[in-house]
Amino acid sequence: MKTLLHNCRALLMDEAETLLNNAFVVVEDETILSVGTQRPEGPFDREIDGRGNLLMPGLVNAHTHIPMTLLRGYGGGCDLQTWLNQWIFPAEAKLDDRAVAAGTGLGLAEMIANGTTAIADMYMHTPAIAKAVFDAGLSANLSVGGVYFGAPEDFSPETCGDCSNQIRLTEEWHGAGNGQILVDASIHGEYTSNAPLWQWMADYARDKGLGLHIHVSETQAEHQASLDRHGATPIRALDCFGVWDIRAIAAHCVWTTPEDWAIMAEKGIACAHNPVSNLKLGSGVAPIPDMLRAGVTVALGTDGVASNNATDLFGEMKFAATIHPGVRRDPLAIRPMDVLRMATCDGAKALGRKAGRIQPGYIADLILVDFHRPNLTPCHSAADNLVYSATGRDVVMTMARGKVLYKDGIFFTLDLERIRREVETYALPLIFG
Amino acid sequence: MKTLLHNCRALLMDEAETLLNNAFVVVEDETILSVGTQRPEGPFDREIDGRGNLLMPGLVNAHTHIPMTLLRGYGGGCDLQTWLNQWIFPAEAKLDDRAVAAGTGLGLAEMIANGTTAIADMYMHTPAIAKAVFDAGLSANLSVGGVYFGAPEDFSPETCGDCSNQIRLTEEWHGAGNGQILVDASIHGEYTSNAPLWQWMADYARDKGLGLHIHVSETQAEHQASLDRHGATPIRALDCFGVWDIRAIAAHCVWTTPEDWAIMAEKGIACAHNPVSNLKLGSGVAPIPDMLRAGVTVALGTDGVASNNATDLFGEMKFAATIHPGVRRDPLAIRPMDVLRMATCDGAKALGRKAGRIQPGYIADLILVDFHRPNLTPCHSAADNLVYSATGRDVVMTMARGKVLYKDGIFFTLDLERIRREVETYALPLIFG
Repeated sequence: MKTLLHNCRALLMDEAETLLNNAFVVVEDETILSVGTQRPEGPFDREIDGRGNLLMPGLVNAHTHIPMTLLRGYGGGCDLQTWLNQWIFPAEAKLDDRAVAAGTGLGLAEMIANGTTAIADMYMHTPAIAKAVFDAGLSANLSVGGVYFGAPEDFSPETCGDCSNQIRLTEEWHGAGNGQILVDASIHGEYTSNAPLWQWMADYARDKGLGLHIHVSETQAEHQASLDRHGATPIRALDCFGVWDIRAIAAHCVWTTPEDWAIMAEKGIACAHNPVSNLKLGSGVAPIPDMLRAGVTVALGTDGVASNNATDLFGEMKFAATIHPGVRRDPLAIRPMDVLRMATCDGAKALGRKAGRIQPGYIADLILVDFHRPNLTPCHSAADNLVYSATGRDVVMTMARGKVLYKDGIFFTLDLERIRREVETYALPLIFG
Repeated sequence: MKTLLHNCRALLMDEAETLLNNAFVVVEDETILSVGTQRPEGPFDREIDGRGNLLMPGLVNAHTHIPMTLLRGYGGGCDLQTWLNQWIFPAEAKLDDRAVAAGTGLGLAEMIANGTTAIADMYMHTPAIAKAVFDAGLSANLSVGGVYFGAPEDFSPETCGDCSNQIRLTEEWHGAGNGQILVDASIHGEYTSNAPLWQWMADYARDKGLGLHIHVSETQAEHQASLDRHGATPIRALDCFGVWDIRAIAAHCVWTTPEDWAIMAEKGIACAHNPVSNLKLGSGVAPIPDMLRAGVTVALGTDGVASNNATDLFGEMKFAATIHPGVRRDPLAIRPMDVLRMATCDGAKALGRKAGRIQPGYIADLILVDFHRPNLTPCHSAADNLVYSATGRDVVMTMARGKVLYKDGIFFTLDLERIRREVETYALPLIFG
């Protein structure tokens, strides 16, 4: 299957930050075959007319809890601990596989319509998520968010539920769809487990060739508790157990320190920056410009919908591009291209995927953004328009792994009406009675 | 002309924060006639089926420089002074009435599609703006942004250009369209004028029954310079000249003090909060929760597109709702309903208009938001979905002053193709050669 995309400008997200004014991109099966400014020789099985719009790599959401889409706007107006303990945790306890599948479908519809082509998710009932994502066609790194609250001396992989969850998920889903689904090992966070689980996960991930997904230093209280408990930040405490010797996504990193950044840069730990969630929950503002300067790979995430309450990475880019200049009172604290990298090539790198760039040999994750709309006119800078002026609703086509998932309001791999019915007649009644 | 809106939920934005689940709203000419949950007796000239969507008051953008839409994304990547002096000011110097009309048309298209029904604008070539806004049908408070750089003793209203601009604008446009256009007096800012202009504007406004629009304490440098110059903050310095004895919109207020807020609350000076612009330009974060506690009316604005770079008040609401919890590390620092008030009823109050609520006797500024879209599903809280999850692109109908300006992607009072042509073939070549 050979597809030609033409009649578009293309922001390649290569090192040179190239913007091709009249681009021709050939996709063969799942992969980008060629990129140029001359019409290549055919024949092609399909041609996609870009209608003068902007083509860019699909967006990577590096930290999600996708079934939480069911909890959009639930339990607002109370403090974080009340929100979690009295609203979110009791609701989550009622979830089953079918409800999780419904919530995943709904979340995927929003994400795909907003131009997302790859996600890194952490949640429960993960096989149900995997099935829904697999069918939807985008790439996903899935993880179970391993917790262990027992005494260290009582730990055994046989009795720790998340070790069996991890093994089951890996065996059933890792590598499915020619790498569409990757399973990441996962420690939910330093504060919800202890050393034996860390050691087991690190060993397991290394043995199976997995990456790792973890929450790190989201709140000051969590960061301080680690200092009290271990005399070390979460990044340093976990470093002793080989956790960082594999590809890793560290979500949040709001309270990380210069010493942490040095470890992150050296070990290749990517930070998944979630500016909206960190603001909304009152966690603070992550020191992203410092992390970039320290050489840390920074990706972008929305976190779960319950704390965002959306998965529009264009909106998230605007936050990432403005919040750091604002709180540092330095309009140059971060560039639009830095933020676009987070949402594309650096996000893909965090997920261990050859994606996020329009270059031959890269996965064909591509989106078209309608640059004719009033809110994107005029265009003095494509990067500025994408980061500050666009919303996910300006996406008119989403292609993941060479397959068109969405075009002009139509979903090709999701049955939105069936998902809606499942949400309304099954999932919501199950949770909220 | 009598219109019935039905088959919708309605967020009234009244004091009780009422959400009517099955609302019937009757509009007669420019005004809301009745609001209820029973089908009222007809006949009606027109019925608008809300298709199960959410009806709310149209949004009020309390601080704009609308022709700057032409400069969207222009001159990014440099510091504030360079941006202003080397990019923005030279571009603005080339504008003429026709280019301003084109830029206004483009800005209005974006605003109307995003559900904006009233604006408070400050710019040059104001009669050209007035004509474009008048034809487009939304309400606008227009002002010239008076500056006076001469010595105080040399001031005379005959030689100060912005006094004649003010007089001309008032005489030609104040009250036009049954109050659709209101002219506000205007002092651009404390730092771009001095006492004789302040006195003249205050006297003129009082004499003509106008309100006033001004920039206040946007940057720390500006605020500090006023302290150095007058031994007083801009709010206090201006207070001596009767400036605050009329309805006033003070844009930004980032660096205002508790003493300023006391004056603002006492005198009824509304703050126009522009969170995105303040962040993007590195100005800081306005102390909005404190101002609300002090009893100050707070409205919401986008500022000019050159420093935003959009006019989506839904996006702006998300910033206003999350930035304060984030920087204060208090998830309860501000409620979604506080932010909705800023964008509707309190915005209208700042503009001196009986609008921003769905109540009999109020101006019929109404928008429908498509709550069926994946990004607004499920709906545990209409206010949370509007503030955190919606974007302007979810607006499916914009009615201003009883007239439908936009529905399902179609503009009824703007010729978007003509505007586009004027922007592309006249305005942009004029400015950028």
